Amino acid sequence: VKGLQVITTTNPATGVGAETGLQETAPGDVEILVARARAAASLLEALGREGRARALESIALALEAARDHLVSTAVRETGLSAERLRGEISRCTFQFRLFAEAVREGSYVEASVDHARETPIGPGPDLRRMLLPMGPVAIFGASNFPFAFSVAGGDTASALASGCPVLIKAHDSHPLTSLKSFEAIGAALSAAGAPEGSAALVFGQDAGLELITHPSIRAVTFTGSLSTGKTLLDVINRREEPIPFYGELSSVNPLVVTPGAAAARPEEIAQGLFTSVTGSGGQLCTKPGIAFVPSGGGGDRMVSTLSSLVHDAAGQVLLNERIATSYRDIVERLLASGAEVVAKGVQPSGDGFVVAPMLLGTKASDVGGGLAEECFGPLVIVARYESMDEVGVALGLMPPSLAATIHAGEGEEPLVAQLAKSLTSGAGRLVFDGYPTGVRVSWAQHHGGPWPSTNSQHSSVGVTAIRRFLRPFAWQNAPESVLPEELRETYDQIPRRIDGHLVLPSPR
Amino acid sequence: VKGLQVITTTNPATGVGAETGLQETAPGDVEILVARARAAASLLEALGREGRARALESIALALEAARDHLVSTAVRETGLSAERLRGEISRCTFQFRLFAEAVREGSYVEASVDHARETPIGPGPDLRRMLLPMGPVAIFGASNFPFAFSVAGGDTASALASGCPVLIKAHDSHPLTSLKSFEAIGAALSAAGAPEGSAALVFGQDAGLELITHPSIRAVTFTGSLSTGKTLLDVINRREEPIPFYGELSSVNPLVVTPGAAAARPEEIAQGLFTSVTGSGGQLCTKPGIAFVPSGGGGDRMVSTLSSLVHDAAGQVLLNERIATSYRDIVERLLASGAEVVAKGVQPSGDGFVVAPMLLGTKASDVGGGLAEECFGPLVIVARYESMDEVGVALGLMPPSLAATIHAGEGEEPLVAQLAKSLTSGAGRLVFDGYPTGVRVSWAQHHGGPWPSTNSQHSSVGVTAIRRFLRPFAWQNAPESVLPEELRETYDQIPRRIDGHLVLPSPR
Repeated sequence: VKGLQVITTTNPATGVGAETGLQETAPGDVEILVARARAAASLLEALGREGRARALESIALALEAARDHLVSTAVRETGLSAERLRGEISRCTFQFRLFAEAVREGSYVEASVDHARETPIGPGPDLRRMLLPMGPVAIFGASNFPFAFSVAGGDTASALASGCPVLIKAHDSHPLTSLKSFEAIGAALSAAGAPEGSAALVFGQDAGLELITHPSIRAVTFTGSLSTGKTLLDVINRREEPIPFYGELSSVNPLVVTPGAAAARPEEIAQGLFTSVTGSGGQLCTKPGIAFVPSGGGGDRMVSTLSSLVHDAAGQVLLNERIATSYRDIVERLLASGAEVVAKGVQPSGDGFVVAPMLLGTKASDVGGGLAEECFGPLVIVARYESMDEVGVALGLMPPSLAATIHAGEGEEPLVAQLAKSLTSGAGRLVFDGYPTGVRVSWAQHHGGPWPSTNSQHSSVGVTAIRRFLRPFAWQNAPESVLPEELRETYDQIPRRIDGHLVLPSPR
Repeated sequence: VKGLQVITTTNPATGVGAETGLQETAPGDVEILVARARAAASLLEALGREGRARALESIALALEAARDHLVSTAVRETGLSAERLRGEISRCTFQFRLFAEAVREGSYVEASVDHARETPIGPGPDLRRMLLPMGPVAIFGASNFPFAFSVAGGDTASALASGCPVLIKAHDSHPLTSLKSFEAIGAALSAAGAPEGSAALVFGQDAGLELITHPSIRAVTFTGSLSTGKTLLDVINRREEPIPFYGELSSVNPLVVTPGAAAARPEEIAQGLFTSVTGSGGQLCTKPGIAFVPSGGGGDRMVSTLSSLVHDAAGQVLLNERIATSYRDIVERLLASGAEVVAKGVQPSGDGFVVAPMLLGTKASDVGGGLAEECFGPLVIVARYESMDEVGVALGLMPPSLAATIHAGEGEEPLVAQLAKSLTSGAGRLVFDGYPTGVRVSWAQHHGGPWPSTNSQHSSVGVTAIRRFLRPFAWQNAPESVLPEELRETYDQIPRRIDGHLVLPSPR
């Protein structure tokens, strides 16, 4: 029997590591946690929508109460600023409350009633359909959002909202932040009457693998690198019983500055792009990766401003040694692929995982292949173009992305229409005259895109994230007593589809 | 270069085969068809919801016009009765019209608008989200519904409704029926203004494999055996880019007769079960596979009636030699696993693929393992039980199914509640006092269940089948001119979610 590894935590600002007092979760313990989750599933479902909405609100309060402690722990483990981390907790609590609202609103169960009647193809029985929770879900948190895409993130919030118990694999970059987040969530769930086993936390890669191969796990969520995502997907594909893998993996997000935009507001776009690319150390999956900028006057002014900003920028602490090493390696590869250094920020010193911000340049006609690699960190490539045709060709050579952006000027409607059409086919979100970072959490959000950015229809941001954990079920000629409340004849508190017609709830 | 095989057609009633004049689709031709489909995708989307609704209605009319010819062809290729096949075409035309209705109604695009506003976590940009067609879809038809789950089936109807071009692999059991169905559909699409390339038909296994490995195919649907489904899934899992595989595979559907039901209406249930199990030669995926019947008086009467019906039943023509051979093999395996012959129908003679209906018996306490194997054909196993505990244990040992059924008597509410709970976890539809065959096509239908019955959330029957071919897309701060009609500010002809609130369309 292999001994269980001790879990360590490292401060990326100093590179100094320390033991946490935690160790990898033992295989037998994973088994127990999954069994508890399985037992909790029907109780969590039985808590009902109102009960679960209250549990989600209770979690939001608990995270707010623990905010100072959570932030100070996360600052030490991630190198992200306290301000950014405080905001991230607000994002989490907003998200838990938004899911509480969605659970109360009730559209997400898709309640649908077809009464028995004669149809053109014979008598139709009474049919009632709604979505039910799938069962225990395994969640793999991301390194770059220690709260909003980790233990207290959208996957946890949406899975619990759906009524599915969660088993969360703590990210090895922030084990103590994970533990403290989990403690707040666990206490809140208990206080709100959620069953024991509604949430569990495991440490270590082996425990994570044990989760995704376990027959009782009904779905897996993952936010991280393409290579790790592919590894997990391969493991899942070898299961006896297939289960969905919801991966958010890799994205080189294009941003196109039209000639009109470059002429009208070069400095403003340069400043906005700089902020978007260097915020949070450039470690955001929606960070613009390649900016297409016209050659000539406006484009030159924009690049010149951007170049100054990057040149003056301080070194940035990255989340862990792996990401910092990878950043330097990718820069080397991009230069080997023909990119040139346009500007480089202050060269960092010291022992932490600190890197210099970089502005690389290339010709739009050279984009594709080695230049279309995602680089986690404060780097952007500016691709200069002579004509929009060059941009069109380059976009066709880039892999699909989570988001794409257009900055346009006055009177460029036909150009914008053409660009929008081209970018829609290869992305999940299209941003106009703004920046794709700072993903709004709301009903109409979609944070996904064609492979390799994601591999699923619904993703982890926005209300529809809840759909990933639900399965349809139909009752035929069922007595009222066995039907869920939402499908009973006179229930009228949520939107329902009755004989094909959408009916809004009655005012309470 | 391997030569292309000639496509043959066989009459299962006689076992006599003949050449069709068709041959396998050549690899180069598959490539051309996929390229045409890819080119058609944006045009089919641009046809708009009303244009696509009309195309679907046009297909329904074309199938009705071709009905006699289609039915006579299918009778020769499938051995199914003309009456059954005429009804199946009605089911198809009803389905195309239902999808036209759903496309016009427009809920399925999930139009959602979040206006720009201040939120508790800062300013939120304007976001507008809806579902867009994914692109070309590969469809593998089933043997047992030469119309409703084949070329003219729900997969084709729902994919075209969503705006996705279809590439259909003709089932080798009914090539001419496939061809004639396709000709009707193709002509109707052209007449309705759908682009060339909206639908294509290919013949041969190699052509089918070429489709699912092709990078331009965005999703695959399949209705057929678990083993073939697993083979296709393995091929898809080896693609560079994962795509969804919507499989409907295998199902042993349990039917439970409570003591009260057995006492109250034993003959009626026996008659209904007999009809459900032998209809269409028992070749329905929703056919009850194992019926749990109480020991003692009522149960004895029920089994006695069922036994007489089976004993007197004529031999039945199965769809092809493979299914007939498999039927005999599975009977052997069931007997080897401990089942006993309770009744056997008339032993068939002649050269066709004809088998005798069978009633097998076992004890409920022996169900599971080898007795829980799907048997395509006119066979049902009656499992006698002494107590409901035995039924509960047996249900836990059976694989999940598409459908489960409860027949209950008066005053058995607590028992029904307990059974319903147990059956809900392992099925996709729960039928009360009826039979799971004859799947109603409607808004509230769900024809799916946990693996191995299906591997997807949405399945091929009911309006939500359309969801399988759509991907979400979000526009951020987009000018009206680039937005789809459904997301423009003043559009009010479909249900939309505005700032989190569902809003019904304005009366026209």
